[in-house]
Amino acid sequence: MTSKDSFYIPVEEARSFCLDVYRQLNVPEDENIQLADIILDASLRGVDTHGILISPIYAQRIRSGQMIPGRHLKIDKETSTTALTDACQGLGQTTSVEGMEIALEKARAHSLGAVTIYNQSHNGALSYYVRMAADQNMVALMFGNSTPRVAPYGGRAGLHGTNPVAFGIPGGPHAPMVCDFATAASGAAIRQAVEDQVPSIPGNLALDRDGNPTTDPAAAFDGWLLPKGGTMGYGLALLADVLVGALSGSCCGPDVPPVQDIESPYCCGSFILVIDPEAFIGLEVFLRRVGFLIESAQAIQPADGFDRVRIPGERGQEEKERRRREGIPMPRRSWEQMLQALEACDVDVAQWWR
Amino acid sequence: MTSKDSFYIPVEEARSFCLDVYRQLNVPEDENIQLADIILDASLRGVDTHGILISPIYAQRIRSGQMIPGRHLKIDKETSTTALTDACQGLGQTTSVEGMEIALEKARAHSLGAVTIYNQSHNGALSYYVRMAADQNMVALMFGNSTPRVAPYGGRAGLHGTNPVAFGIPGGPHAPMVCDFATAASGAAIRQAVEDQVPSIPGNLALDRDGNPTTDPAAAFDGWLLPKGGTMGYGLALLADVLVGALSGSCCGPDVPPVQDIESPYCCGSFILVIDPEAFIGLEVFLRRVGFLIESAQAIQPADGFDRVRIPGERGQEEKERRRREGIPMPRRSWEQMLQALEACDVDVAQWWR
Repeated sequence: MTSKDSFYIPVEEARSFCLDVYRQLNVPEDENIQLADIILDASLRGVDTHGILISPIYAQRIRSGQMIPGRHLKIDKETSTTALTDACQGLGQTTSVEGMEIALEKARAHSLGAVTIYNQSHNGALSYYVRMAADQNMVALMFGNSTPRVAPYGGRAGLHGTNPVAFGIPGGPHAPMVCDFATAASGAAIRQAVEDQVPSIPGNLALDRDGNPTTDPAAAFDGWLLPKGGTMGYGLALLADVLVGALSGSCCGPDVPPVQDIESPYCCGSFILVIDPEAFIGLEVFLRRVGFLIESAQAIQPADGFDRVRIPGERGQEEKERRRREGIPMPRRSWEQMLQALEACDVDVAQWWR
Repeated sequence: MTSKDSFYIPVEEARSFCLDVYRQLNVPEDENIQLADIILDASLRGVDTHGILISPIYAQRIRSGQMIPGRHLKIDKETSTTALTDACQGLGQTTSVEGMEIALEKARAHSLGAVTIYNQSHNGALSYYVRMAADQNMVALMFGNSTPRVAPYGGRAGLHGTNPVAFGIPGGPHAPMVCDFATAASGAAIRQAVEDQVPSIPGNLALDRDGNPTTDPAAAFDGWLLPKGGTMGYGLALLADVLVGALSGSCCGPDVPPVQDIESPYCCGSFILVIDPEAFIGLEVFLRRVGFLIESAQAIQPADGFDRVRIPGERGQEEKERRRREGIPMPRRSWEQMLQALEACDVDVAQWWR
């Protein structure tokens, strides 16, 4: 299970690690348990950039005062179906769960519920929150905005963030359909290419600082990302900025602050929409129809290089089952860099060296 | 303005043509005026596949009884915020406008409104309907489903349609942001490549009938389309099928009938969501924030090959202004083929030969 360069962390050990680190960062115990659950969910599903390795980033932001443990979502304004809410610089995870709960409650009572959250911070993988809805037989859509690192279609400099879009759909007897994607090339993947000294990256991912297409990872890392699928990613990212930033009268596109400025509030946000299938054809028929769609997808012959056709979220679920058994694979270098960075934030991780 | 191979049709002449053709197809006069408006809007914005050249397809379907003029949207079930509606095989244009009006009315009264429409038929470019909302200071999202011609990510055969996604956002003093895209490669573009005897198409657009990637236009036309942006297009297309088909307990994925079977009902549909910005930060601040986003996009230096950065919908608007002045450019061969096809449907187009 282990080698010189990497090892596997059993899930319960990873959980203890999270609880220990964030307890030292003054995250209240009930919030800490939820935070560990969300961080571990990403690690288990293979979204390692949003899993336990993100801890030094959160530690820096908590220490700087940008992310404030113990804060909760505050409703500025609401109607029977909507809420405009302020995350008050609280943890993105805590306030996203609270936002989803408000949207679910409104949808249960009035068929639809929508919540926009401003003044938030990084909330990890959106899949966790939309799965909360799917697990309660509700359909959810969620959007996020972030630092303007992505050039608009046909442009030379950043306009909007990698703005993720996610949805969750209950699957009845099947696992829910859960889809969660960034609308642009991944900045983390480009940073990884730099660290791994990969000689070149595909030409459709990034621009250099001057706005010229580049295949050089270092120039890309210093430059701008490109939207996924050209006008499709550009359009969806703008929609996210409108639903998250404009609808809340808050940060939007170029005035979402640079994520590196950890001394000041980050001011990104989320938009959540929940739909109750009961209001339409009714849950029973709805689940039967979704089941038909899922089974139809799974019955299609796979293309070369694929063992079978999956529905959104299925690969993450398979990875989760494997990692629950085998542990979370961890490059030794990543682990050590993380512990060093936590020590630099005055977190005592002496017991976690291995 | 004209040549041997092509000519320009003045807008008012194109409108008279539509009114004449659809009057002969027994479209009631008020419905006909609206239909002409929607068809011309596509022709003016450069979406020629959904403009006047689509008339023979509609003529065939009206003659076969698949599309039935004079029918209206019927509400099967509703709540204060939602409606499940039956298009009763009426024209897709008529029933989409009616669906949008219901969603707008519900959103005006309860901040959010959602309508799912089943038993519909082709409704042209979704941009028209979401622009209706933007023009009334509302945000709209719209999805459609269609014949399963698109392979799922990693699959060898069709699962879902080219399922479009559209949104409209009011722009205040600016033109609204209007985005409308198919979530897969364009079948019409591949048919055009066959007709134009283009030797090859890019390798990421289509599969042949056996599910192998192909660059041969004829093999692609006989085969399957691929989702745009891999998992992103696949995910969005599934979401469309769930919101349109599953939520209405109607056709969904593989059981949306082949669009070629014009003797039987088509049974595609739409899903519309409307959000009232007034319920969140309020219209005034919302429009100011959207304006900031639009102006920020337009201020970004253009990449090589672009004269400037546009917001979604801007290119169509520019084309509309040009075509209003210059007329709709029309290849003579396309025009003649259209007139012949209309004659085959017993539409008298003698006066339209030129």
